[in-house]
Amino acid sequence: MRAAIFRGGDIVVDTLPAPVPGIGQVLVKTLACGICGSDLHAAKHAHRMVAVAKRTPGRVPMDLSRDIVFGHEFCCEVLDYGAKTERSLKPGTRVCAMPLMIEADGPKGMGYSNTYVGGYAEQMLLSAPLMLEVPNGLPTEHAALTEPLAVGVHAVEKGALRGDEAPLVVGCGPVGLAVIAALRLKGIRPIVAADFSPKRRELAIKMGADIVVDPAQESPYARLAADKRAAIFECVGVPGLLQQVFEKAPRDARIVVAGVCMEPDAIEPMFAIFKELSLQFVLGYTPEEFARSLRLLADGKVDAEALITSKVGLDGVKGAFEALANTEQHTKILVEPWR
Amino acid sequence: MRAAIFRGGDIVVDTLPAPVPGIGQVLVKTLACGICGSDLHAAKHAHRMVAVAKRTPGRVPMDLSRDIVFGHEFCCEVLDYGAKTERSLKPGTRVCAMPLMIEADGPKGMGYSNTYVGGYAEQMLLSAPLMLEVPNGLPTEHAALTEPLAVGVHAVEKGALRGDEAPLVVGCGPVGLAVIAALRLKGIRPIVAADFSPKRRELAIKMGADIVVDPAQESPYARLAADKRAAIFECVGVPGLLQQVFEKAPRDARIVVAGVCMEPDAIEPMFAIFKELSLQFVLGYTPEEFARSLRLLADGKVDAEALITSKVGLDGVKGAFEALANTEQHTKILVEPWR
Repeated sequence: MRAAIFRGGDIVVDTLPAPVPGIGQVLVKTLACGICGSDLHAAKHAHRMVAVAKRTPGRVPMDLSRDIVFGHEFCCEVLDYGAKTERSLKPGTRVCAMPLMIEADGPKGMGYSNTYVGGYAEQMLLSAPLMLEVPNGLPTEHAALTEPLAVGVHAVEKGALRGDEAPLVVGCGPVGLAVIAALRLKGIRPIVAADFSPKRRELAIKMGADIVVDPAQESPYARLAADKRAAIFECVGVPGLLQQVFEKAPRDARIVVAGVCMEPDAIEPMFAIFKELSLQFVLGYTPEEFARSLRLLADGKVDAEALITSKVGLDGVKGAFEALANTEQHTKILVEPWR
Repeated sequence: MRAAIFRGGDIVVDTLPAPVPGIGQVLVKTLACGICGSDLHAAKHAHRMVAVAKRTPGRVPMDLSRDIVFGHEFCCEVLDYGAKTERSLKPGTRVCAMPLMIEADGPKGMGYSNTYVGGYAEQMLLSAPLMLEVPNGLPTEHAALTEPLAVGVHAVEKGALRGDEAPLVVGCGPVGLAVIAALRLKGIRPIVAADFSPKRRELAIKMGADIVVDPAQESPYARLAADKRAAIFECVGVPGLLQQVFEKAPRDARIVVAGVCMEPDAIEPMFAIFKELSLQFVLGYTPEEFARSLRLLADGKVDAEALITSKVGLDGVKGAFEALANTEQHTKILVEPWR
């Protein structure tokens, strides 16, 4: 099968052996797979990601000397089942799944793995118990947004907001937009959202933001309701951002760190101490949140179409990684490996 | 009056004009005042403290070109009242108070102020509404521990522990010891406490720790109950400590940052992201927590005597700052300006 492979620090298209499903595994055809900002970060900071994974119990670091196929936001079609595996859904059924393979000693990630290819390949393996059927009528490209939406849903849940906070979303890339959608669905308003890009601010409004701010023009913190506790969602994930939030946040603010900063960062703790700030770092989602996100999309609760700015085949993956640097033009690019 | 003054980066004993109480203010004789780790930090990092205060709305930065008298853990004796001020307690009454002066536009700190001298002076001013009478029979030197105990009580309250966490106290200086006492009083056990100093570990047990660990010998994190969420109290406050906790903490841990790190710090956010850690930075206490701490001491709930390792007069303040570097010998040194 063909795949867009992370090999030697570059993205190359080549042929790989088709995966063979084992017990509890399902062979699927990849219909669509979104490119995540974490894939761009991983391509740029692969060695750092490996170094941190090596020092974190329970995480399997990538071996960068071997092939890796990224892609963890996928919608697929069932092709075949491994031995002794209940054939719960007919071949041809469209499915989504958390990008995890359940093994005897616990779940293993896919997409940043030497063992399990991600969605930038014509075929992949899923864990049978994690498959969720795409509700009839939900377009494949919208179903592929389940994963990034779940990230936003989880950030809002894990942030343990009481519902009476004044939310501010810093950064309106896919993560920030998903957070805005999740806040709106939970009724936590008014939602203030900040991004330098006019296009991203427009999308923020489509996702449910009440007030959008260009930080080059005014401070988004000035738009927070003064009588409520601020809940600030850091959805950028670059060094320096956290310290910026420390300096700008009002007293007692709750900061949910949803941006995935893979580089070392510098902070001045005194700002956080003086203001008694609290932080919740978040990653991923629960199975319930993932399933809920798929239902939200199927019920038309989120304007999925607005988020998709381009579709490419495997040959277009490398160019798409570069194109995504242009936030004015692109939000979510879907890879369709069968093209 | 005589005072130990922070002047030109050094501690010198000199004479200052006796303070004159204004409306709402009380003139008191300082009976005893504890030396806080923050005073040592402030002496060492005064310029940095000023720089951060200048960039934090609501904080009044010290003017280091003018005299400052540290000391915010005091027990005093009422001498006189300002004009139009209710004489609620008789002269001679012993009192404690939060180190704040209530002004028309909000409370102002004392102890790190050019306006209000702290407790390393023979006399000082208190805010009349904040005075709390020392319950009869509580020794003055124990009453002076109200403030540092309140820091621990507040850290445990603000940490929003549910009471079923597995607590680990990193660092058993006065802050860590107060946190241990507060955890024990709240019944959150078993309490694991870590410090390199045998003397500090001994004190940790006196304050209520169930398990003490020398981090040079074994990891205190290995002693945490695996079936409960870890609540880690960072009570050291030096650069690098937070990252160390990020690396060692178990998944989903709650980190309460009670150590006051006045220097810039470096973190690798990926560790916190992978483990979805949460942080609560804490500082100070509420009036209720302060009053409760005084009652706890009066009720004999905390072994105050064990914490006091020395008493000095004003001439001994400078030497005490140096002596406190020896954690094996000293925990809390009290200044008795009348000596």
